[in-house]
Amino acid sequence: MKIGFLGFGEVATTFSSGLKENGLDVYTCLNGRSSRTVENAVNSGVKLCNTHRELAEKSDILFSSVVPSMAVEVAKTVGNHSNGIYVDINNISPSTVKTALSKIKNGRTVDAAIIGSVKRNGLKVKIIASGTSAEEILNLNQHGMNITSVGQEAGDASTIKLLRSAYTKGVSALLYESLYHAYKLGINEEVLECISETETGDFIESANSRIVSASFHAKRRAEEMDEIVEFLSEHQNPIMAQATSKFFKNLSETIQKPSKRPENYTEVYKLLNGE
Amino acid sequence: MKIGFLGFGEVATTFSSGLKENGLDVYTCLNGRSSRTVENAVNSGVKLCNTHRELAEKSDILFSSVVPSMAVEVAKTVGNHSNGIYVDINNISPSTVKTALSKIKNGRTVDAAIIGSVKRNGLKVKIIASGTSAEEILNLNQHGMNITSVGQEAGDASTIKLLRSAYTKGVSALLYESLYHAYKLGINEEVLECISETETGDFIESANSRIVSASFHAKRRAEEMDEIVEFLSEHQNPIMAQATSKFFKNLSETIQKPSKRPENYTEVYKLLNGE
Repeated sequence: MKIGFLGFGEVATTFSSGLKENGLDVYTCLNGRSSRTVENAVNSGVKLCNTHRELAEKSDILFSSVVPSMAVEVAKTVGNHSNGIYVDINNISPSTVKTALSKIKNGRTVDAAIIGSVKRNGLKVKIIASGTSAEEILNLNQHGMNITSVGQEAGDASTIKLLRSAYTKGVSALLYESLYHAYKLGINEEVLECISETETGDFIESANSRIVSASFHAKRRAEEMDEIVEFLSEHQNPIMAQATSKFFKNLSETIQKPSKRPENYTEVYKLLNGE
Repeated sequence: MKIGFLGFGEVATTFSSGLKENGLDVYTCLNGRSSRTVENAVNSGVKLCNTHRELAEKSDILFSSVVPSMAVEVAKTVGNHSNGIYVDINNISPSTVKTALSKIKNGRTVDAAIIGSVKRNGLKVKIIASGTSAEEILNLNQHGMNITSVGQEAGDASTIKLLRSAYTKGVSALLYESLYHAYKLGINEEVLECISETETGDFIESANSRIVSASFHAKRRAEEMDEIVEFLSEHQNPIMAQATSKFFKNLSETIQKPSKRPENYTEVYKLLNGE
């Protein structure tokens, strides 16, 4: 099986050497690339094509791993020549992925999103994939990759990544804010320990319970958050706490307190939608 | 050892029956209490005092578990008569705890904060305690309680609880927001699964890495969040995502990108303080 890489940055470098070690032929095209990129590619022992067209025609699976701003452009360039499966693995928004994949004439496309760190995990990094040919690239798992299919629709994989990212970046900000106050008071280790104990346990169960409680006690949570905002304001402008307060206020006005505690989080969303 | 409870709501009911089962004498005073409270107390087999003064004089350890608005008032009432250790276990702010404890003339006081659910965990619920007599009440752990001392200062325990609460409530709001969008697109299970996998692992290590990365990549995070806000706006007013974006923008303007990646989160805060 021949694997192609459009672009040859960190992702392509890591994946191509891993896939080579696992017995696959790896190709790229270095036209117009920086000397650093050329050096990377040559060192990794990847085979070279003279043109992007040749690369696209030859590859059974062609990964697009370019700079985000080039994702649509490069898809246009090879769209008429891609004979195999075209996998967009760039870190771009769901709508940009869809635009890029729409340029691939044979329609054999995959929206792939890397979850986690390529630097830390190498070829084994978790990848989620959606789109018409998502199932077909799962055989790369026999060559050391770690791909999970998450649906037929192009855009689903990158949406899942984006929503995960909204969550994880928000958590970073929340931690930053809470621990900063603790640090100012000299009790940061105790606070971190206490939060850590809270977060040990089944995540999905706790997520359900949090969303259900949020809906059931939105008004009280908003009031409690007002006090927390006042407290945190002593050492910083507590942007996340203010937003949390606003979120619960907004929720208490949007959703009527259910007459009994919802069973799980999807019930809460059904309520919110008046279903 | 004689244990007293000022107030007899859910906390006192649960703790007193647990402590009785573990061989301790438990007292309360029911003057002016509702018939429901009286019934609760009588059913639990707690011994009765005629006055709060008598209760305060008799108790080796006296818990204040009243409605939050009464915490200071009740401390005033018994302040001159408390012979043993006075433990404020009410859900009140650090400054209110300090005010309440300042009324106790013998100075043997504890700021205690319940972490988690009394309903679910009963007498075994985690309690953190600070203040002059925090160490002394740890012998209640031999009678079925689960108290950890977190420092000498009154206010520390309730501050830790408050900062934990700022974090957990924010996480609830973040989950609510991200999963709501996923629900609208019919990929909520996939998103929850993906976030859950991300959150499995060592919490303290991941917290460190998140705060360090936040400081090191604040500008890029802010830009990424702008795209996420735009995306989420399709189905809701994404209050938390907006705040996360604002947080990172603010951070990138407040802290100069460190020349090398900080080792841990306290280094980040030192930078932020110009230490």
